[in-house]
Amino acid sequence: MGASPRDIDDLPKNGANYMPLTPLWFLDRAAQVYPERKSLIHGSVHYTWQQTNERCRRMASALLNHSIGPGKTVAVIAPNVPVSYEAHFGIPMAGAVLNSVNIRLNAPTIAFLIYHSAASAIIVDQEFFPLAEASLKLASEMKNKEGGGHQFKWPLLIVVGDEICDRGALESAINKGAIEFEEFLKGGDPNYVWKGPQDEWDSIALGYTSGTTSSPKGVVLHHRGAYLMALSGPLIWGMGEGAIYLWTLPMFHCNGWCFTWSLAAVCGTSICLRQVTAKAVYSAIAEYEVTHFCAAPVVLNTLINASQQDICPLPGPVHVMTAGAAPPPHVLAGMSKKGFIVTHTYGLSETYGPSTVCVRKPEWASLSIEAQARLNARQGVRYIGLEALDVVDPTTMVPVPADGTTMGEIVMRGNLVMKGYLKNPKANEETFKGGWFHSGDLGVKHPDGYIEVKDRSKDIIISGGENISSLEVEKAVYEHPAVLEASVVARKDERWGESPCAFVALREGTGGSKEEEAKVGEDIISFCKKRLPGYWVPKSVVVGPLPKTATGKVQKHVLRARAKELGPVWASKM
Amino acid sequence: MGASPRDIDDLPKNGANYMPLTPLWFLDRAAQVYPERKSLIHGSVHYTWQQTNERCRRMASALLNHSIGPGKTVAVIAPNVPVSYEAHFGIPMAGAVLNSVNIRLNAPTIAFLIYHSAASAIIVDQEFFPLAEASLKLASEMKNKEGGGHQFKWPLLIVVGDEICDRGALESAINKGAIEFEEFLKGGDPNYVWKGPQDEWDSIALGYTSGTTSSPKGVVLHHRGAYLMALSGPLIWGMGEGAIYLWTLPMFHCNGWCFTWSLAAVCGTSICLRQVTAKAVYSAIAEYEVTHFCAAPVVLNTLINASQQDICPLPGPVHVMTAGAAPPPHVLAGMSKKGFIVTHTYGLSETYGPSTVCVRKPEWASLSIEAQARLNARQGVRYIGLEALDVVDPTTMVPVPADGTTMGEIVMRGNLVMKGYLKNPKANEETFKGGWFHSGDLGVKHPDGYIEVKDRSKDIIISGGENISSLEVEKAVYEHPAVLEASVVARKDERWGESPCAFVALREGTGGSKEEEAKVGEDIISFCKKRLPGYWVPKSVVVGPLPKTATGKVQKHVLRARAKELGPVWASKM
Repeated sequence: MGASPRDIDDLPKNGANYMPLTPLWFLDRAAQVYPERKSLIHGSVHYTWQQTNERCRRMASALLNHSIGPGKTVAVIAPNVPVSYEAHFGIPMAGAVLNSVNIRLNAPTIAFLIYHSAASAIIVDQEFFPLAEASLKLASEMKNKEGGGHQFKWPLLIVVGDEICDRGALESAINKGAIEFEEFLKGGDPNYVWKGPQDEWDSIALGYTSGTTSSPKGVVLHHRGAYLMALSGPLIWGMGEGAIYLWTLPMFHCNGWCFTWSLAAVCGTSICLRQVTAKAVYSAIAEYEVTHFCAAPVVLNTLINASQQDICPLPGPVHVMTAGAAPPPHVLAGMSKKGFIVTHTYGLSETYGPSTVCVRKPEWASLSIEAQARLNARQGVRYIGLEALDVVDPTTMVPVPADGTTMGEIVMRGNLVMKGYLKNPKANEETFKGGWFHSGDLGVKHPDGYIEVKDRSKDIIISGGENISSLEVEKAVYEHPAVLEASVVARKDERWGESPCAFVALREGTGGSKEEEAKVGEDIISFCKKRLPGYWVPKSVVVGPLPKTATGKVQKHVLRARAKELGPVWASKM
Repeated sequence: MGASPRDIDDLPKNGANYMPLTPLWFLDRAAQVYPERKSLIHGSVHYTWQQTNERCRRMASALLNHSIGPGKTVAVIAPNVPVSYEAHFGIPMAGAVLNSVNIRLNAPTIAFLIYHSAASAIIVDQEFFPLAEASLKLASEMKNKEGGGHQFKWPLLIVVGDEICDRGALESAINKGAIEFEEFLKGGDPNYVWKGPQDEWDSIALGYTSGTTSSPKGVVLHHRGAYLMALSGPLIWGMGEGAIYLWTLPMFHCNGWCFTWSLAAVCGTSICLRQVTAKAVYSAIAEYEVTHFCAAPVVLNTLINASQQDICPLPGPVHVMTAGAAPPPHVLAGMSKKGFIVTHTYGLSETYGPSTVCVRKPEWASLSIEAQARLNARQGVRYIGLEALDVVDPTTMVPVPADGTTMGEIVMRGNLVMKGYLKNPKANEETFKGGWFHSGDLGVKHPDGYIEVKDRSKDIIISGGENISSLEVEKAVYEHPAVLEASVVARKDERWGESPCAFVALREGTGGSKEEEAKVGEDIISFCKKRLPGYWVPKSVVVGPLPKTATGKVQKHVLRARAKELGPVWASKM
């Protein structure tokens, strides 16, 4: 009767003690525990968790009525409105894969996405119907070009109305043959019993990264990772049961860092926001007593610099998670002064959202707000749920010393790393080489173990053979009192190969005429000379609004193109 | 280039994007993020997370030096002292399985555990060394009785000293050949690189349920479940980063409901407690600013009824999770009045600890404390991490209506259900029958979806063919002002088959003489007559202290034996 070796492990899985992990259960639970609590608020539209549960089941059932199930992909083209949320449950409940499309993309790019993902259905917000139409047309041409007699299989086209918008656009879409979303739902069963994935490794979502040089890459995420990230986020953030969450971060951006699914786990309430302006954000916070929201640093900057009439007092502590770019210390300090509690995280679409969090140590509290902001501007330590993260020499894969200066590539490993890129074995081989996911970001490890991103591999400026971190230069430029926003890229330099070129947006009341702008530019250069090593100082400053992505990231590739147009910096100009 | 069906799923696992889930990573992370923060406090012994990490790695390495690794079991016999915590990481880091032994068990039972689990090592607190010695002797005899010429393989015996205790006992153990734990650790490598489980289904822990009729059953838990439960607990409880947790709940009880591992996930601090008394609990809360602890209702009762000089004011909000028995409403109300925030959960060793939580709805806040306590005394809704829970007819497996009255068996399904019982295929077949885990508990489902346990299957009293819930009778008895604790079991009844027999401990200042006790007994019976259906009223009341398990559960089987000794209730006595 004594145990022989491995007796202890000889107990197989059965239907009672094993189920594939999936975040879909969180919705089921939210509807059971809080059937009457608000799940989603969008203008005058208020849904409860019971309604959301029923609507998502209807969506799954209606999709399956159209044979859209396992192995199929459904594209959603919509801003932060209820359908974007519902799609995170309704589509996977049918066994299909959700592709949330960035609404700022142009028709040729969306055409590529539709084509590459072979979307079986497109659910599109009425405002974006013309974009979807144009994209579909282009996608069908791609297929025809491929030849071989294949016919482009036109996806099911579903248009979503919004009482906030003009009714005419919706009707025009319906007249063109699109099914109206609420009509579509009526065909589904509100009590449909979904089955969940057969395997937790099955795909739940597909999201395309905005390619700067090549075609967009399709990041594929699985149910397991979505489940784990949905639990990790609230734990890291201290986002408790019943949180009131404002959707400033687009849900099409890496599934809203998986907070779409987290909100069901914590039975919270989502406040939708069609457009992000300082006034809309402040008003929503005050009206709904928002407790949490996520936003790129550029949105935080907008909130800090909002005009007085757009600002409402905060109704209580408001927690902000920021990522997507390293927030300059002055932005963190500015938010803190306004009473926001900022948690700084860092990650990629490939890692389900945040991979690191800059955990605020209690002992930092005695430091000045500025000193805290400097510490808080670092990317921090690995997320719960991500098993390993390091900064390594990209050639040898040996970890760099924790000295705060030696640069290396940031690499991740574990259950919060994507399945891979869709139909892109070459990219997968590269990105997973050596048993790590390669972020392509360069950084350092501080003596306290916190990592700090210094640059994207491709954002580094190489001047006279020396690396210049464009982020460090940006930080210095940001400190100049006239600067609202800054972005620094490499510009060709006759003498040094490359030198830093700063693009800046000025605060209101600064600049205006060409002369004034030139003067500010000169001033920024001398300002930086006092703060940076000589070769790090921008040799040129360009004033004007910065080009941004849907998530508020500055589009460095656009600036690089502009820098190229400027031609090289000449030695004589130094 | 268009996707063919299933392209979307065709991305296999690799070393960068898949790792078996295990809570061991939480320790690794805690040591990275908070190397200097206190992990464990026990008297004057204070460990930091870095030290705990090193000590656990040493433990794993030292065990492997003795060839104790995968497939092997290590028993720990200790109260809530640091080694009990460290064992939760050190033993699985070696790939071995932790068996935390209930220190209140007697030598023959522990002998059975050692024998049944084929323990390769026993780590024993110095106070319990004589118990371990006696158990080992009995275990070796069991083996000899089995015959076949097998020699009993004497486990490695490791004794753990405690400065709080008498040094002599430790020395005596060492003289008898036991290795002193700190010496043992010295043989291990503090930088040992553990590998984690090969499969997340591998076993991490084994815990024996206290069998009332049969031999104890060995509940086997896996790394996957321990990981998921470690994340679920803090989320459910709102246990944030840096929580200060007091160990009143024994770590040998279902791994402290997995809060051992949760504390590493939230980088919290464990306050150890060798013995649980009201004074010790109140003092520790005040001294260490405890934020969270878990305890059975009987411990809460002790806190409510503590004498004034043992009570210290609470330093801030103190969150208490209770389970292990249904807390009577007056206990919940009493704790609430003292300022504790009580979360009521319910579960079994077979479900990693809690399976349900009585989520407190915001709308309850407007009710009286007593009304809140009544709602809060229900077992509630399923845990995050448990995929399904229901109350079903045990024969047909059909869910009972949510009417608050129809009784059924509580059943669970999902990732927080054990692997199974060790070497007990018959019990496994029964317990997992019909694709559900059968709790053996009877309950009802209320219209709001909350479940309420009415009784253990075996605790039900059947009088004249009608079921009587012993819990409901206990609730009524508890309301009597003289009653400190009450437990009701079936007693043989000449007329009705069975009738309720109440065992009660009286408050100080009540009872004393036999006559007074008899009078109180009569009074309790007439008190219950006003509150319960006639056949529910206890026909007999026995006054005296109640027998309890290590976790403070009343040992109903002991009371049942006593009721048997009393002989049947005669019709004439009614």
